Amino acid sequence: MLIVKKFGGTSVANKERIFNVARRCIEEYQKGNDVVVVLSAMGKYTDELIDMARDINARPPKREMDMLFTIGEQMSVALMAMAMDSLGVRSISLNAFQVAMHTTSSYGNARIKRIDCERIRRELQDRKIVIVTGFQGVNKYDDYTTLGRGGSDTTAVALAAALHADACEIYTDVDGVYTADPRMVKNAKKLDEITYDEMMDLSTAGAGVLHNRCVEMAKKYGVPLVVRSSLNNSEGTWVKEVTKKMERMLITGVALDNHAVRVSVIGLQDEPGRAFKLFDLLAKNHVNVDIILQSIGREGTKDISFTVADEDLQETLKVLRENQERIGFTALEYNEDVAKVSIVGAGMMSNPGVAAKMFESLYNENININMIATSEIRVTVLVNKKDAERAMNAVHDAFGLSD
Amino acid sequence: MLIVKKFGGTSVANKERIFNVARRCIEEYQKGNDVVVVLSAMGKYTDELIDMARDINARPPKREMDMLFTIGEQMSVALMAMAMDSLGVRSISLNAFQVAMHTTSSYGNARIKRIDCERIRRELQDRKIVIVTGFQGVNKYDDYTTLGRGGSDTTAVALAAALHADACEIYTDVDGVYTADPRMVKNAKKLDEITYDEMMDLSTAGAGVLHNRCVEMAKKYGVPLVVRSSLNNSEGTWVKEVTKKMERMLITGVALDNHAVRVSVIGLQDEPGRAFKLFDLLAKNHVNVDIILQSIGREGTKDISFTVADEDLQETLKVLRENQERIGFTALEYNEDVAKVSIVGAGMMSNPGVAAKMFESLYNENININMIATSEIRVTVLVNKKDAERAMNAVHDAFGLSD
Repeated sequence: MLIVKKFGGTSVANKERIFNVARRCIEEYQKGNDVVVVLSAMGKYTDELIDMARDINARPPKREMDMLFTIGEQMSVALMAMAMDSLGVRSISLNAFQVAMHTTSSYGNARIKRIDCERIRRELQDRKIVIVTGFQGVNKYDDYTTLGRGGSDTTAVALAAALHADACEIYTDVDGVYTADPRMVKNAKKLDEITYDEMMDLSTAGAGVLHNRCVEMAKKYGVPLVVRSSLNNSEGTWVKEVTKKMERMLITGVALDNHAVRVSVIGLQDEPGRAFKLFDLLAKNHVNVDIILQSIGREGTKDISFTVADEDLQETLKVLRENQERIGFTALEYNEDVAKVSIVGAGMMSNPGVAAKMFESLYNENININMIATSEIRVTVLVNKKDAERAMNAVHDAFGLSD
Repeated sequence: MLIVKKFGGTSVANKERIFNVARRCIEEYQKGNDVVVVLSAMGKYTDELIDMARDINARPPKREMDMLFTIGEQMSVALMAMAMDSLGVRSISLNAFQVAMHTTSSYGNARIKRIDCERIRRELQDRKIVIVTGFQGVNKYDDYTTLGRGGSDTTAVALAAALHADACEIYTDVDGVYTADPRMVKNAKKLDEITYDEMMDLSTAGAGVLHNRCVEMAKKYGVPLVVRSSLNNSEGTWVKEVTKKMERMLITGVALDNHAVRVSVIGLQDEPGRAFKLFDLLAKNHVNVDIILQSIGREGTKDISFTVADEDLQETLKVLRENQERIGFTALEYNEDVAKVSIVGAGMMSNPGVAAKMFESLYNENININMIATSEIRVTVLVNKKDAERAMNAVHDAFGLSD
């Protein structure tokens, strides 16, 4: 078997943890399996590099920022190879040039295009554990790039796809994917399995375990993905195309997103194209809009409300104010005191009553719903921030996720 | 003009110094010249990396050590590019893969084989300052290598040779090459010029300004080399094939090596091949031997004394003791209380009285000479450590170097 294992920055933050990871990998290797390890930069080292750069230049060129960033992962992989050597096992560290990991050109947010597997295969045949730098690539100009958020997970899945690995294991500080965040919902249960689609919707809805970009890639190439703990040996959660339990479970999980802001554009002229103009402008300024609600306003006008991530709020307000005349509206309001609660489950496709059941459980708890959005396998409601945790528990109970 | 400038770790140890180097390079660039900058790792960062590695593995694999080392220079060049950007000048940082800098395979002590100049030329044509990582290369296995001692100086000279640069400037914390170490000889004078051969012999004899490996390369490719201060704008010392003053000056400089130890092998059988066996063994164990003296011992035996670097002493004693029977000697002695004082000068080739003049000046100061060695343009004597500084001054005065 060929297994790709990915460990994040926390898992390699110090000497003890580096050896812990080394031992886990060696255990797998000694079963006779081929092992490829993907590592992030140690602990908060990437943040330290950002501080270092900002101290020199408040707006460092992205190309040079990536040149600086990549040393973080190179440090991790070199030290890991030294740790494995001291444990008597042959290994080799490889950076993006050595792999080679080809990406698109855009610095700071590149996409993987193609991976050459020759070097890795040769080292595996030579019975070495191969340790690869996560998060980084090389573009057509022969420059380093980085992959942006969730970068190392994406590296691991892409490598698993290119090498036709039997599994891609993502190690985190939690046991796997839960029916809800255990810090908020006490009787949340760990899931044994979840589909790619459910996992993507859960990620989008705020569950932080996996970035949906890496799940999307796993789905595209059919990579069997498992989320496991780097601290214990529990089985984790498998993410795959079809799960055995899919028919029986109505919903798979509940997610909370506390970083949403509701923005309302008041008094839009009620004529075709106004809404398009508004959202087109935001898209061009890279603002992602989630739930949208349109309502009738006074005297032949309408109001449009939508949610954006709180980190995009200032940009959103700026863009709208600068274009008030062009879009044509009378007032702008926003509310930061909101949260998004979502239920996700492939089972709801064939069960029309799911959304209603969710609303009922919230009504029973006297929780007001501000906005609603649905997709094929997801229902999201916007509630007041103070109600969020209560809402999660109510919904979690209503669908019997703890049983 | 195309100028290659090399700055060591001290010159880029912090933000202020990085900007200082950036400004010097920009000054050159704004004269209309093409500028290639070679940098070492910041301050003591390479030592920090060694500590980090040793903490994980007391004997880290050399291949992985080089993988770890190379991040030091990559950090320097990325930060330098950011500094230049903040000063409004276009630049680009390049590592050994990007250049590409091809070396022999041996990790930790590689030799440069070939440099591809295409990328650098393209960036220069694009009017960018090109910032290259010193000390590192890539071998035929596509692995990082490092160049060992004096590595970044060698990178700079090799780049200057490959690019047919008009000059290679090595920036240090001294003004240039002096007739003697100014900390010991008060009226030592800075030299305007020195030949490659003299510089190599001075380096070998203990003058720490340049590593003789980079001077050797400069001589081979006829690279005009200049040693300058990174702290002021003084002219520095040119190192070239023939200097104007060569005919007039008897000697160019006096050097001191305080890291020599005298080892004596007592009671060797006086038969052919004994000395060969002894030095062959040391060579095979990578011990460099300098001055050698053979003297008649008692009852048909002989004694051989030689000097080694103090860091090689333990290895030397170990090898000799393990092979005492094979070599055939009765006792082993060593003396660490010695120092080597050398005079170097191309002028001595046509002046047979130079060595005698040196000995006379030492005799006048009542300084005892333990051993003597001479080469074409160098005379070295071994004196007691306590006499070293006095010996340097006496010789410096005798040859009128202060005038």
